[in-house]
Amino acid sequence: MNILIVYAHPEPTSLNGSLRDFSRYQLESQGHIVRISDLYEMNFKAVADGNDFSERKNPSQLNYLLEQMNASKNKSFSKDILFEQEKLDWTDFIIFQFPIWWTETPAILKGWFDRVFALGYAYGPGTYDKGKLKGKKAMLSVTHGASSLNHYGEYGLKGKLEERLFNIQHEKLYFSGIEVLEPFIFPSTAPLEVRNNYFELYKNKLLNIFEEPAIPFHPLSHYENGQLVQEFQK
Amino acid sequence: MNILIVYAHPEPTSLNGSLRDFSRYQLESQGHIVRISDLYEMNFKAVADGNDFSERKNPSQLNYLLEQMNASKNKSFSKDILFEQEKLDWTDFIIFQFPIWWTETPAILKGWFDRVFALGYAYGPGTYDKGKLKGKKAMLSVTHGASSLNHYGEYGLKGKLEERLFNIQHEKLYFSGIEVLEPFIFPSTAPLEVRNNYFELYKNKLLNIFEEPAIPFHPLSHYENGQLVQEFQK
Repeated sequence: MNILIVYAHPEPTSLNGSLRDFSRYQLESQGHIVRISDLYEMNFKAVADGNDFSERKNPSQLNYLLEQMNASKNKSFSKDILFEQEKLDWTDFIIFQFPIWWTETPAILKGWFDRVFALGYAYGPGTYDKGKLKGKKAMLSVTHGASSLNHYGEYGLKGKLEERLFNIQHEKLYFSGIEVLEPFIFPSTAPLEVRNNYFELYKNKLLNIFEEPAIPFHPLSHYENGQLVQEFQK
Repeated sequence: MNILIVYAHPEPTSLNGSLRDFSRYQLESQGHIVRISDLYEMNFKAVADGNDFSERKNPSQLNYLLEQMNASKNKSFSKDILFEQEKLDWTDFIIFQFPIWWTETPAILKGWFDRVFALGYAYGPGTYDKGKLKGKKAMLSVTHGASSLNHYGEYGLKGKLEERLFNIQHEKLYFSGIEVLEPFIFPSTAPLEVRNNYFELYKNKLLNIFEEPAIPFHPLSHYENGQLVQEFQK
């Protein structure tokens, strides 16, 4: 299978860098083909603006969504965006490897979504299970300050972890048609003697990513006017 | 009072640009002093990396949090970060004016948080109601694709709006000690005849921002080991 690792960390010798290398090795050992978008090394442009299009529908006023729609039709995105979209076309599975910063992705990866997951390319007219990247799967592999990992839960200081990740998992990936596996979470301050256990866990997860069931988000058919119909409410 | 508007939109003639100008005018008419961080115009660097520090504690391997802590002690951030922190020191109230992109801020504003809200400056050792920016207030003023505004709620496709904004309001602003007002949400596709109503609503909100009560997030004293103690659970 074809696998794309989108990696966002400024330090190659970081834990995130190790996890990127570890997953590449494990996946290649299984016979998969792995490509990597190393956003920091690529000096990936994080900021969406008018330079993201080689031609403009309206050169005098920037309506970013309008220009995305036009560029999706005419393949007139800037070269760096087209390059990322070509990798997305190619891949069956995407792993996002990044540190949780402020409960979200680092800005460079947020910019990757803003610019690459364009209207008309990743979604639109269809969204969610009708999104244009349907057929692909993805998984977040994240590091997290360990001390606050017990601050999650219905009554946790940070609320439910699934709610903190919903903006990425449901509102970006699933919104674009991608099925999402449960995330792999590595406590970044885990002591050395426990670290190997996490690498072992990750190895086992990577061995099964094509069999593991996706998070069972509701399909659009379960909603009416954007609200879950009663029979599907727990 | 001193008010900082942090504004993130690539098009000056956009609805977001109008809202920035409108709020500045309304607030100055009330006698407040307003400064603006126009992140696109400033070409604000979105991407956190080793160049964010004028001296490095560890020049050979980047541990971003360690360097932030060191730079907070020695005022050795890069000039653009120091400039933003100086504005934060000065302000009593912060308005964040931006379009909701992918249920979050545009990447340029995420980068502003990653870089400016540094460990040792905005938080740490204290967090939440012990955060270092305690005494300041803030409010999100956002535009939002109107068609999906009815997709929120407990059983909405996008879940509760307060949960979508929790990563910003609770986990960045309140995390750093800032009290947060209810957001002002402007449906970006509202027809022209309704738009004036929203501007009128915004005007009234701006007239009362120093009296309006903040969102009643729980103080740390309501938690034990990161979990809300039973008497405060509804």
